[in-house]
Amino acid sequence: MELMVNRERLMGRMMEMAQLGALPNGGVKRLAASDEDKLGRDLFVKWCAELGFSVHIDEMGSIFARKEGTRPDLPAVMAGSHLDSQPSGGKYDGVLGVLAALEVVQVIKENNIEHERTIYIVSWTNEEGARFAPAMVASGVFGGAFTLEYGLSRTDAAGLKLGEELKRIGYKGTLPADYGRRMKYLKAKQSENGGFSSYKAYVELHIEQGPILESARETVGVVTGVQGIRWYDIEIVGSETHAGPSPMNMRNDPVRKLGDLIPEIYALAKAAGADARATIGELHAFPGSRNTVPGNVRFTVDLRHPDDKSLESMHNMLTRLCERIGADCNEIWYSPPVRFDFGCVEALAKSCKKRGFPSRKMVSGAGHDAVYVSKVIPTAMIFIPCRDGISHNEAEHAEPDDIVNGATVLLDAVCDLANAEI
Amino acid sequence: MELMVNRERLMGRMMEMAQLGALPNGGVKRLAASDEDKLGRDLFVKWCAELGFSVHIDEMGSIFARKEGTRPDLPAVMAGSHLDSQPSGGKYDGVLGVLAALEVVQVIKENNIEHERTIYIVSWTNEEGARFAPAMVASGVFGGAFTLEYGLSRTDAAGLKLGEELKRIGYKGTLPADYGRRMKYLKAKQSENGGFSSYKAYVELHIEQGPILESARETVGVVTGVQGIRWYDIEIVGSETHAGPSPMNMRNDPVRKLGDLIPEIYALAKAAGADARATIGELHAFPGSRNTVPGNVRFTVDLRHPDDKSLESMHNMLTRLCERIGADCNEIWYSPPVRFDFGCVEALAKSCKKRGFPSRKMVSGAGHDAVYVSKVIPTAMIFIPCRDGISHNEAEHAEPDDIVNGATVLLDAVCDLANAEI
Repeated sequence: MELMVNRERLMGRMMEMAQLGALPNGGVKRLAASDEDKLGRDLFVKWCAELGFSVHIDEMGSIFARKEGTRPDLPAVMAGSHLDSQPSGGKYDGVLGVLAALEVVQVIKENNIEHERTIYIVSWTNEEGARFAPAMVASGVFGGAFTLEYGLSRTDAAGLKLGEELKRIGYKGTLPADYGRRMKYLKAKQSENGGFSSYKAYVELHIEQGPILESARETVGVVTGVQGIRWYDIEIVGSETHAGPSPMNMRNDPVRKLGDLIPEIYALAKAAGADARATIGELHAFPGSRNTVPGNVRFTVDLRHPDDKSLESMHNMLTRLCERIGADCNEIWYSPPVRFDFGCVEALAKSCKKRGFPSRKMVSGAGHDAVYVSKVIPTAMIFIPCRDGISHNEAEHAEPDDIVNGATVLLDAVCDLANAEI
Repeated sequence: MELMVNRERLMGRMMEMAQLGALPNGGVKRLAASDEDKLGRDLFVKWCAELGFSVHIDEMGSIFARKEGTRPDLPAVMAGSHLDSQPSGGKYDGVLGVLAALEVVQVIKENNIEHERTIYIVSWTNEEGARFAPAMVASGVFGGAFTLEYGLSRTDAAGLKLGEELKRIGYKGTLPADYGRRMKYLKAKQSENGGFSSYKAYVELHIEQGPILESARETVGVVTGVQGIRWYDIEIVGSETHAGPSPMNMRNDPVRKLGDLIPEIYALAKAAGADARATIGELHAFPGSRNTVPGNVRFTVDLRHPDDKSLESMHNMLTRLCERIGADCNEIWYSPPVRFDFGCVEALAKSCKKRGFPSRKMVSGAGHDAVYVSKVIPTAMIFIPCRDGISHNEAEHAEPDDIVNGATVLLDAVCDLANAEI
C-alpha cells in the first residue's frame, strides 16, 4: 500500500495558518519578525512539539524541527520553506512548503516508516524580503551569501533591526545560522546528538508563481534549477526639442532609438530559446511633455536564462545593441544560474512517475530559499500550479488536489532520500 | 537708394528692453501683466509717443501705436508681436517683432516715406501663456477664438485674473478687443478717425525657434502657414506578470507592443513627407518595477502637418495602427493647419529677392499671434534663425545680421502693403 498524505489535515493546517494575519480578501500579511509572524511560528512550533519533534531555533530565527532517524550519525534530510508573507500576500507562498513537510513527517511517524536519516522540517526567516531587504536573508546566511552580522543588522522602514525584532518575538536562537559554523558546532556535539554532523539533502515544495504548469494541465513541476538573472539600467540620451519646428531628420529623438531597440531585445531573448526571459519593467521618457521631443529615455532590462553561457550570450547581444545605438548600458546585478542536485531531482522524478502524476522538469524563474541552501546542501524543488500564475497577491490560489499531489511527491522523496546511501 | 533699418538703434532697444526682468544668464522674465511686463510696456509706449505715434490700448491690454497714412480711410497695415516672456525666456522671442515694427515705422517716418495706409505697431498681451493659460489669448480674442470674458477671466497660479492684473498695471484699455466689435466701433468713429474702418494686412517678424534656417545658412524664412496639430493619449494594456516564471510566448507584454508601434509611428510621419512631424513626448510603463512585466504603457503622440489632408491621413494611419495592436487611442486636441495670405507672403518674398537674402518659404511648427490674427486679417510671418534652434530658454540667441535682415524684409513689406491697392 502506498503512503498517502492526509488531505484534510494538511488543508486544515493551511487554512488555520492563513487566519494569522488574515486580510479581508483572502490573503495574509505576516511580515518577517512581526507579531503575526510570531503567531505563525508559535502555531508551527506547537504542531511540531505535539508530534514529539524537538525544535531548534538558529541565530537568524529559522526554525528546525527534528525527527530522529535510526542512524542519526548519517547526514540528515531537510524539507521546508518559509512562513513569512508579502504585505498583501497569499495563503500558499512559503506556508505550503513548511506545512507539507510537517505533514510528510507526520505521515512517516504515523505509519511507523523506518528511516535511517534524521529528518528536519525547516522554516526560514524572512524569505520575502518585504519587511527586511534583501529577500531570502536567513537561507542566504546559511548558504554563505551573507554574513550573520549582515543578516541580523537588516533594518525595516521604521529603522528596526531584524536581530532585535527576532529577540522581541522570542525567536532569536543560538544554533549557528551559517553552514560553516553549524557544521563545526554539530561535529563538536556529535556525541550528544547521536553522531549527526551534516545534511544529505534539502527539498522545498512551493507554488510555481508562474503559468506553465497550469496551462499545461500538469500537477507537479520537478525543478532542476533556477534561472540566472542579469539586471541593467539603460539610458538613451537625445536632444530635447520643440515638437513642431524640428524636421524629423534633424532630430536626435531617443524614443526613435528606443523603438529600434525594443524589438531587438525581444529578438535576442527569442534567439536564446524558450527558457530565455527579457523584461523591460521600468520605462520613462524625460522631461515628459507632449509637445517636446524627449531629451532622454531611461529603462531597465531584466534578462534571465537557466544556462549561464546562454545568459552571457544574451548579455553580449544586449551590450552590442546598446553600443550600436549609442545607449548607455549599465549592468547593476548578476545572479548566476543555479543547477539543483541530480540525485534530489531524480528522487522527485521517480515519485512523479510512480504516482502517475502529469509533471515536467522545469526551471524556476524566481528566487527561493532553495537557491542559497543549494550552495551547501544537495537540493531540489517541487512546484505545483497556482491559478493564473498569480502570487504575491491576496488572490493567490492553489487547488487542494495539486497541493496533495505536491506533498505526496515530497513524501516519496523524503522517504527515498532518508534511506539512500551516501 | 534703398531704405535701411538702423542696426544700432534696433539692437540698442532690444538690449534696453532685455534689462527689464533681466535674469542672471542673459534671459528675461517678463510674465504677462506682471510688474516687469508693465515696465516693458511703458518703455515701448514711451518710444512710440516720442515719435509722435498715438497709442491705443484695447480691452485685453494689447497696445496699438498708430502712424497715420495719407489715405486714412483705407484699411490699415499692422506689424508686431508680443513683449511678454516665458519664466526663463530669451531676449528675442516676441520682442523682436514689436521693436522691429517700431524701427520700421521710425525709418518710414525719418525718410518721409509716403504711405497711403495707416500703419499700426502692435504688442499682443499674454502670447506666452506662461502665467495665464492659454497662450495667445489676446490675439485669440481678436481673431474670435476666445470671448473677451474668457480672456479677461484667465487666472494665474495665485488665482489672480488677467483682467484685474491688466487694470492693476494700468493697461486695461477700452478699445474693443475682438475683431467684430472693433470693426463696428471703427465704423461708428469713421468721421473722427479720418475714415479708417478695417485692416489690410498683418505681418509678424519672429525668431524661428527651430533649426531649419540656421542649418541651411539662410537669413530669412517666409512663413506661408502654420502646421496643423493633433494630440493623442494612447494606452496599451497588457498583463502584469513576474519577470521570471512566465515564458515569453505566454506574456501579454505591453512594452513589446510598444516596440512594434514606435517604428510604425515614425514610418507614418516619413510617409507623409518632409513637412510631417511625429513626437512621442510622454512615455511611462506601469507599475514600473524592474522584475515585473508592466501591466500597461501610456504615451502621448503629437502629429503635425501643414496640409490638413496629409494630417488626416496620418491620423487615420495612427488610428489603424493602434486598432491593429489593440491600443486605446484617444484624440484630445485638433488644431487645423493655417495658410497665410498669398499677397502678404508674396510681399515678403519680393523683398527677399530684391535684397538678395538667402531665404526660403517655410511652415511654422509653433503657434504665434499671427495664427489667430490670420482668421480676420490677411497675414504672413517672417522668421529669422536662432542659434541651435533654442528658444524659451535664457540661452536664446539671434545674430544682429539676421535681425537686421528680418527687419529689412519687414520694412519693405510694410512699405509695399501700405501703398498697395485693395
